[in-house]
Amino acid sequence: MGLNAPRGAASARNVLREDLPLPLCVLRAGPIERNITRFQRFTKESGVLLCPHAKTAMSPALFGRQLAAGCWGLTVATCSQLQVVRRHGVPRVFYANQLVGAPDIGYACGELRRDPGFEFYCLVDSASGVRLLADRVAHADPGRPLNVLVEGGLPGGRCGVRDVGTAVEVAEAVRAAGPHLALAGVEGFEGLVQYREPSRREADVREFLGFLAGIAETLDGRGLFQAGQVLLSAGGSAFYDLVIGQLKAVRLGSPHHVVVRSGCYLTQDWGAYASLLADLHQRTGSADPALEPALEVWAQVLSVPEPGLVILSAGRRDFGQDAGNPVALTRVRRGSAERWPLRGSGWQMTAVSDQHAHMTVPPGHGAEVGDLIALGPSHPCTTFDKWRVVHLVDDDYNIVESIPTYF
Amino acid sequence: MGLNAPRGAASARNVLREDLPLPLCVLRAGPIERNITRFQRFTKESGVLLCPHAKTAMSPALFGRQLAAGCWGLTVATCSQLQVVRRHGVPRVFYANQLVGAPDIGYACGELRRDPGFEFYCLVDSASGVRLLADRVAHADPGRPLNVLVEGGLPGGRCGVRDVGTAVEVAEAVRAAGPHLALAGVEGFEGLVQYREPSRREADVREFLGFLAGIAETLDGRGLFQAGQVLLSAGGSAFYDLVIGQLKAVRLGSPHHVVVRSGCYLTQDWGAYASLLADLHQRTGSADPALEPALEVWAQVLSVPEPGLVILSAGRRDFGQDAGNPVALTRVRRGSAERWPLRGSGWQMTAVSDQHAHMTVPPGHGAEVGDLIALGPSHPCTTFDKWRVVHLVDDDYNIVESIPTYF
Repeated sequence: MGLNAPRGAASARNVLREDLPLPLCVLRAGPIERNITRFQRFTKESGVLLCPHAKTAMSPALFGRQLAAGCWGLTVATCSQLQVVRRHGVPRVFYANQLVGAPDIGYACGELRRDPGFEFYCLVDSASGVRLLADRVAHADPGRPLNVLVEGGLPGGRCGVRDVGTAVEVAEAVRAAGPHLALAGVEGFEGLVQYREPSRREADVREFLGFLAGIAETLDGRGLFQAGQVLLSAGGSAFYDLVIGQLKAVRLGSPHHVVVRSGCYLTQDWGAYASLLADLHQRTGSADPALEPALEVWAQVLSVPEPGLVILSAGRRDFGQDAGNPVALTRVRRGSAERWPLRGSGWQMTAVSDQHAHMTVPPGHGAEVGDLIALGPSHPCTTFDKWRVVHLVDDDYNIVESIPTYF
Repeated sequence: MGLNAPRGAASARNVLREDLPLPLCVLRAGPIERNITRFQRFTKESGVLLCPHAKTAMSPALFGRQLAAGCWGLTVATCSQLQVVRRHGVPRVFYANQLVGAPDIGYACGELRRDPGFEFYCLVDSASGVRLLADRVAHADPGRPLNVLVEGGLPGGRCGVRDVGTAVEVAEAVRAAGPHLALAGVEGFEGLVQYREPSRREADVREFLGFLAGIAETLDGRGLFQAGQVLLSAGGSAFYDLVIGQLKAVRLGSPHHVVVRSGCYLTQDWGAYASLLADLHQRTGSADPALEPALEVWAQVLSVPEPGLVILSAGRRDFGQDAGNPVALTRVRRGSAERWPLRGSGWQMTAVSDQHAHMTVPPGHGAEVGDLIALGPSHPCTTFDKWRVVHLVDDDYNIVESIPTYF
């Protein structure tokens, strides 16, 4: 997709004029710039460090803007993501995952040895994992200790210790693995709670954050943190208000910083995160941060084979479905400037093929073969990763920059 | 993923030795070679033309082997796929989709004008679509008529006319659009039937193929096909036995060829297509074609956070889920040659995150942090498209070739 898209600066090409083959993945430049500015200000005013997850877009052109706006570092989840951000010169990386593989550990340690300015953090959640990591770090010889945080996990969830006792064991294993490892803090990912019953979510997140705070206090009380500052990190893009409130309130013997790792604020979305942001605004009684959806996939009407059915030229290879199908946003009559909003008009994506979307449409829908349709995805991460190039557009859908991704 | 993978010939790097960061997408070279040879022979002996869908792997290193084995042409579904196969010099392309966009039509016509040896077919399913295509072809000036096939569609399905009367209208619109368009045959995609009740599938496919045959006979009777041979094409990877039997039996005034477009025979899979192949063997009472699953995703155990739960380092960004989650195939003890088969052992992927798989495992599972796990995906198309490089391995998982994809 977008193989013949030029990369670089301004261009007069326009999405609505069919200057490029569809489907296309489009980012609206205005919302992107405003989201970056507003979220950076929000975290600064909240007194926390912003370390956005780079996995969302895996785009140096975008994470470069986030770094320029003042974010503390970037978060990654895999070795290949770490390689991308390091090749683009990112000096501080939070590896929000267990670091296990020999080549992964070898790469991180090689970067630490090569670049004294590189600051790196990763996670541990078992004593056996700590010993494996320490052995491999010793072998890879980074020239200084590898910073690790104990990961706390949700029962039935993903990685992370499930109780404070295990956290202590893990932290003691880290101490025993000195000088190869150094304990720098406590981490957790509360975002899995978003898949639970809405009525339970806030209480479950609060309970989980209390668990992380309890780990931090216990390890602090036992003097298991390396001297200096302690990092407490949580926060996907769903509950960062709760993370900020609860983790800032922790009282430790050493000073601590709260690191939030939200990635989806960059583009927001038209489904899951739109709804989660509305919940957040309701919880806080504030409209801050005011984030706008910026990500769209543009497709074309290929066929109107039955009265209530329209087939589009984009499918599961062009947008994510894990948090629901995209919503129809706009219809543009081919070869004209006529536009119709589609939200709330009864258009619905009822089936999806690899390269097609099957839209159930109301009588009088008016769509014709060749019309252009904007789709608004839910969960940006699984739409970005479908594209090697995404196009930054102005309000008139002129392409102002074509941005490569590095998935 | 695989950003630091070298491309090219033999290498001593081994997947099981952790010579490369995981997860990795692996193709077993032996099954791939045998599948290509066997399916080519099967279609030849069946008296049909094989035009495999290139969208499955979008890999010139693989479709080059299919062309070398004697396939008639390649099938694509989008303009970007067409661009890839043309840039790799493929002389005959079946565009198994409505061709609608101005730049898409411009590209195809430009290739026809530039290269007299290029043979191209695409689909039409409405008189208005034919007129739009003809206008755009006239504008793009390919220097010869564009070959089109009337697409027949399933009720409630995707593109395609729903009745013979509309097919006649469409074919007459094609005739009226001479010299820009030429009617070359009839096409349909019966594969959507695989999502219906198993007990209905065979009858529904037979009914649909009968509908396509009826269109062909009617258009032939009215002299609407361009002089020369007629193409009748159907066949994804689920019901090609029925397609071959029924479309070969059609009797027309002009000679006709049957074109099947299966793509998934290349790798088969561990889920949907494995089951559909078993159905096919049962229908035909034969073990032909004997196809083997060749596609695996290798991941690593990151955490065993609870007794019945193992977290792996691969997630929805590494494999498809549209036809079910991958199955666990093999466990390899880190740093050793010990292997355990996992099929039927009670390992089950019960949840998936962007970068993690959550495996429910039985007591005594024996997995430890760092162990390597092979996963077998269902529906190869949606696993291939997660990777920019896939690795061809020998039976010992030495990497013999690292293959770029062009999604």
